[in-house]
Amino acid sequence: MKKLLCIALILALMLTTGTFVMAEEAAAAPKYVFLFIGDGQGIPQITAAQFYLGTMENPDASMPVPGHLSFTQFPYLGMVTTYDATSFCPDSSSTASAMASGEKILSGSLNFNVELTDPLKIITEYIKESGTGRKVGVATSVSLDHATPSAFYAKAASRSEYYNIATQGMGENSVLDYLAGGAFVRENGPDGVDENVYEIGKRNGFNIVDTNEGIRALNSESGKTLVLTPGRESDGSLHYAIDSERRMAQGEDVILLKDLVEAGINVLDNENGFFFMVEGGKVDWAGHANDAVTSIRETLNFSDAINVAIQFASEHPDETLIVVTGDHETGGLTIGFATTKYDTHFNYLYDQTISFYDFDKVIEELRAQGAGFTAALAEIEKYYGLTMSSESPLYMTEADLERLEYAFNLSMIPEDDRELTAADTLAYGGYEPLSMAVCHILNNKAGIAYTSYSHTGLQLPVYATGVGAEKFAGLYDNTDIFFKMADVMNLEV
Amino acid sequence: MKKLLCIALILALMLTTGTFVMAEEAAAAPKYVFLFIGDGQGIPQITAAQFYLGTMENPDASMPVPGHLSFTQFPYLGMVTTYDATSFCPDSSSTASAMASGEKILSGSLNFNVELTDPLKIITEYIKESGTGRKVGVATSVSLDHATPSAFYAKAASRSEYYNIATQGMGENSVLDYLAGGAFVRENGPDGVDENVYEIGKRNGFNIVDTNEGIRALNSESGKTLVLTPGRESDGSLHYAIDSERRMAQGEDVILLKDLVEAGINVLDNENGFFFMVEGGKVDWAGHANDAVTSIRETLNFSDAINVAIQFASEHPDETLIVVTGDHETGGLTIGFATTKYDTHFNYLYDQTISFYDFDKVIEELRAQGAGFTAALAEIEKYYGLTMSSESPLYMTEADLERLEYAFNLSMIPEDDRELTAADTLAYGGYEPLSMAVCHILNNKAGIAYTSYSHTGLQLPVYATGVGAEKFAGLYDNTDIFFKMADVMNLEV
Repeated sequence: MKKLLCIALILALMLTTGTFVMAEEAAAAPKYVFLFIGDGQGIPQITAAQFYLGTMENPDASMPVPGHLSFTQFPYLGMVTTYDATSFCPDSSSTASAMASGEKILSGSLNFNVELTDPLKIITEYIKESGTGRKVGVATSVSLDHATPSAFYAKAASRSEYYNIATQGMGENSVLDYLAGGAFVRENGPDGVDENVYEIGKRNGFNIVDTNEGIRALNSESGKTLVLTPGRESDGSLHYAIDSERRMAQGEDVILLKDLVEAGINVLDNENGFFFMVEGGKVDWAGHANDAVTSIRETLNFSDAINVAIQFASEHPDETLIVVTGDHETGGLTIGFATTKYDTHFNYLYDQTISFYDFDKVIEELRAQGAGFTAALAEIEKYYGLTMSSESPLYMTEADLERLEYAFNLSMIPEDDRELTAADTLAYGGYEPLSMAVCHILNNKAGIAYTSYSHTGLQLPVYATGVGAEKFAGLYDNTDIFFKMADVMNLEV
Repeated sequence: MKKLLCIALILALMLTTGTFVMAEEAAAAPKYVFLFIGDGQGIPQITAAQFYLGTMENPDASMPVPGHLSFTQFPYLGMVTTYDATSFCPDSSSTASAMASGEKILSGSLNFNVELTDPLKIITEYIKESGTGRKVGVATSVSLDHATPSAFYAKAASRSEYYNIATQGMGENSVLDYLAGGAFVRENGPDGVDENVYEIGKRNGFNIVDTNEGIRALNSESGKTLVLTPGRESDGSLHYAIDSERRMAQGEDVILLKDLVEAGINVLDNENGFFFMVEGGKVDWAGHANDAVTSIRETLNFSDAINVAIQFASEHPDETLIVVTGDHETGGLTIGFATTKYDTHFNYLYDQTISFYDFDKVIEELRAQGAGFTAALAEIEKYYGLTMSSESPLYMTEADLERLEYAFNLSMIPEDDRELTAADTLAYGGYEPLSMAVCHILNNKAGIAYTSYSHTGLQLPVYATGVGAEKFAGLYDNTDIFFKMADVMNLEV
């Protein structure tokens, strides 16, 4: 009797102290693994979106209330260092490669060693070679051959080898079962004379879908699928979310990133599970352009896309892992500005209904018409709420107007004929002067600011939930994402 | 037999699933609890210090190498939201109070409810009332009555009630066994006619130590101790670390924050353990002034102070908890700047050997002498390395020189006679124009920048090691620091 009790206690002790390591190692890998990468999305971008949302949802609150994004309540939090082999301020191809291959490499290169002599083996190859039958999907809101999506299916000494990258994705050895986004930007090669990449894809069994109805009809019988989102921009990306929402408000049927996630799950779902990398790619682009509202709306759009995975996980609670992170911060966004001191006014941002990108088109129209400054002010009020009316909190001071008129005059000169000073370059970062002046004025009135048009060296958060999520807690390097992913999926790397 | 095995398995299951909550609750509290608060120290400040240190330690490295601070390798990482009841960009008194009392309160108030009618009960009171005999210590690099230290021993509707705060610290009901820093700033009350606060302290049993030798001689027999650091600034704070180090290089014997931690441990160490809050207070002040190098050197100094606790913990490994966090970010520091794009040059920062604060005194001297711009340039080269020599990476462009000369001309006018434009206010934030111009030029050449002279809304990291450290992992609010501390110390709150 005593002996058995003793055995019982020893057994209990072994279990609690983790002596049964074998049992732990044999833990089943999550069947469904999601990796969400918000490009250019650091803590400032996430926090700005939370403050924007919270302020909007609680108009009468007596004190500040941040909103919740779909992933900010995940139970496990990590933080990653992001520098690459070139700089403390890395680029998207080296950082996505760090997560895909576990190596720190040069800015601008894609899954290639630092000497640029050899390609690196990537997580999706390990998955395919594991023989588990796990499917692989990649979705993005930008072009299919952009750095982040590419890193999960291709290798290239330069991220600009778009056709080379595309042919790997569409090739006979492609790791992909699902690829969705805008489009490939060099479908016929760098000189336009190579075999059409979509034809290569078809030859290798890809089902190409390029209608809204087709995307929504995708299912587990669809086979290998390439989605080219209809109505995409000429740069191969989906519209900015803020522009999609304006279009939707006008009755247009627009495919959003969340739709590509939903379609992807429908295609990828199978008894052997899947690995699905989804990039929110235009948080970064909005950050480069210092367009805070467009950035915030991209983050909210990305949050919606993650929510699709959360819904899926709720139906497969013991089989799913969701990891959400970023690749680097873009723009040096801060919540706080010199003139507004300790105040912020996120409500000032609600009137902006256009991205800098679409507003550039408005400016182009003004230039074509030979319009005057007054006409420009009318467009600025229409799309941003900045006004001459002194009763509005968004009224423009004399200094604001001077700044806008200076930028307007530059913007009315055809781009090739502009003579920009060093101060102009600092003020506009190579973007359309009037768009930048409007963004900076609105940002600063709201109490937020940027310091750069490039990436910065900020560490980034990792949010994780589900099977194996605890492994993503703590402070580590972005290359560790690769090893943790491999560990969770029981891959030998 | 089967029945007993069954009991054994149930027992094992209960232990592993945590059904034995009682056992968990009975876990011994760490005997020694350290809470380090880096005022104004967010991820950007920590990362900048790591990049500065790593670049310095690896001059020949072919790729970027961040350095390690004493606490950045702690096993548990958390992140806290910092907004208060007034703003997304909170102040030090409300955030320190959040950690001390567990409540979100108004900016500018100290452990008082939002209605400003009632004081809140603070963690050090719970400790004292617990009857465990745990001692309480507070150390800071700024004045003893500044917001962060005060929050751990006092309550006031306004953080500016310095004398009221001081009398609580020195009063007969004081929770303090050790208080160290610069000095109290209103020792004789707001009008200079009240009882001297040091006399109150003496009457209530405080041993006042104000010599370097006295500080170094403190020990467990010293009794209740108040340390007034010799050679402090007129504002009641210790010198900036960068200025202390310059003084030490000249042979001066200077007490640093780490010495106050060492002395504190010597005073507080006893069989019932202690709670010791240590503030690195001047990271914040350097951030307000956009002086990146001074901020970095403060963070390194703070890291050294934490290292004293780490050494202590290594001697008491199963009895110590160390938690390191901040209260808010200050200045909107970013690693990345518009003109340097993806490059940073942390090595450009090595030549700066003076804080803006001491450089203000140099400027004052120049003003008194009626010195010309050339004399100012000589001082700038001496203390910052910025030069007219075109071979140096720190050579000043024509635009830099114009900017400096404009600021110099303003700085040569007695402060009360200056007529500042809105652009001047934005450029200098109320600080000495020439000091700010120099800091901004140097920061930007190195590829870093600030957006504000105030606090910002960034979430902050929490690093924890030792007994109970795992409770500090994850994402939570700064008020949860209070509850986690109480939980770890088995306090009923």
